[in-house]
Amino acid sequence: MSLTFIHRTAGIDQDVEIGDGTKIWRFTHISKGVVIGKDCIIGEGVFIGKDVKIGDGCKIQNGSQIFSGVTLGNFVFIGPNVTFTNILRPRANIEQKGYVETYIKDGVTIGAGAVIICGNDIGKKAFIAAGTVVTKPVYNFGVMRGNPGKIVGRITEDDLKIRYY
Amino acid sequence: MSLTFIHRTAGIDQDVEIGDGTKIWRFTHISKGVVIGKDCIIGEGVFIGKDVKIGDGCKIQNGSQIFSGVTLGNFVFIGPNVTFTNILRPRANIEQKGYVETYIKDGVTIGAGAVIICGNDIGKKAFIAAGTVVTKPVYNFGVMRGNPGKIVGRITEDDLKIRYY
Amino acid sequence: MSLTFIHRTAGIDQDVEIGDGTKIWRFTHISKGVVIGKDCIIGEGVFIGKDVKIGDGCKIQNGSQIFSGVTLGNFVFIGPNVTFTNILRPRANIEQKGYVETYIKDGVTIGAGAVIICGNDIGKKAFIAAGTVVTKPVYNFGVMRGNPGKIVGRITEDDLKIRYY
Repeated sequence: MSLTFIHRTAGIDQDVEIGDGTKIWRFTHISKGVVIGKDCIIGEGVFIGKDVKIGDGCKIQNGSQIFSGVTLGNFVFIGPNVTFTNILRPRANIEQKGYVETYIKDGVTIGAGAVIICGNDIGKKAFIAAGTVVTKPVYNFGVMRGNPGKIVGRITEDDLKIRYY
Repeated sequence: MSLTFIHRTAGIDQDVEIGDGTKIWRFTHISKGVVIGKDCIIGEGVFIGKDVKIGDGCKIQNGSQIFSGVTLGNFVFIGPNVTFTNILRPRANIEQKGYVETYIKDGVTIGAGAVIICGNDIGKKAFIAAGTVVTKPVYNFGVMRGNPGKIVGRITEDDLKIRYY
Repeated sequence: MSLTFIHRTAGIDQDVEIGDGTKIWRFTHISKGVVIGKDCIIGEGVFIGKDVKIGDGCKIQNGSQIFSGVTLGNFVFIGPNVTFTNILRPRANIEQKGYVETYIKDGVTIGAGAVIICGNDIGKKAFIAAGTVVTKPVYNFGVMRGNPGKIVGRITEDDLKIRYY
């Protein structure tokens, strides 16, 4: 069993479950009801909203914002300064009930600075390039880039190379 | 009268005015001379620069950067990781006097991860989609998206739906 | 000799060198082996990865993420919420050795919210507009904007104006 580490400046709310070997770094806030699997790395200045579920072996880089309604599978990579959303038409003066849910499947990579509009699930091992604005769902192994994001290729069998269309 | 809340890790500089019922969350810094209205929510890791004025009922999400020269009206929604600027041609070796001002009117929504180039005012109830880079002013009720941002529609009467052009 | 300032909430790891007159602000983390020159300003909530080298007179704004493998020359301006990367195909389940290096030459400006894909060097005094996603190298004095970033002009002799192509 590997040890869990939580930096002294991190804020961990009540009723949070954190798996063995997971590390949580400075100035990060894990909200009530969050469940995080084993052997994850949660970087610095990250926010994880209420009741978010995160699988095993995920890596979430500094400055990323993961709000209620988002679910991450196993071995998901979230780059730095990635931003999720959970309301389609936010307005400061209109109270909106519930969240639009977003599922990020096993093995997905979301590159640095990407923005994920809620309700757009991202399929198994898909690769979202840095700076992409995801406005549509992404199928398994799909490669998306641009603003708005467009599918430009497919991840090959070794999980690392891209075959462009 | 509702209570004002300031998280113990937030930094509030001198000569700041904060209205009743406003909440300021962790690791946020409010600079000298800032005026914030009533019933606002300022999220985590937010920076508000010197002398910024913020109206009533605004919601500013985590990680957003609002620099001197920006003014927010009432009921403005600023999504997470939104970035303002206040100099058009920043250079590390050239000292530039003064800021280019930017006015965000009542009821505006600025989506997650958007970047607002200074000097581009955003009109009443306009809706800036997540990930937009705003390089031109936006008129009242306008809907902008993309990089560079383009006007693609108009907000309808209920403030929530978009009529696309 | 001007004084060095380090905010009490900043975290400075071992074996860091910080030049005279450099200021480091709140919630910023400087990792082991980093070398920072004279008269720099490192803003709030910034992360500087292991062994990064930063020249003299640089300004790094709030929320920017500068990872191992990045080198900044002298008088480099990094806007707020700028994100660098250091692996081309990150995957949570695949351990990747070494980093792809990125050199940012003297006098470069990188605008707010830009994302720099690793391995794309940026030439002397080049200007990267706010919100740009840099996917190709940029030559000296080049002006890039968009997603993906395209060269649209050239910086003129005074370092501040742009001649568009």
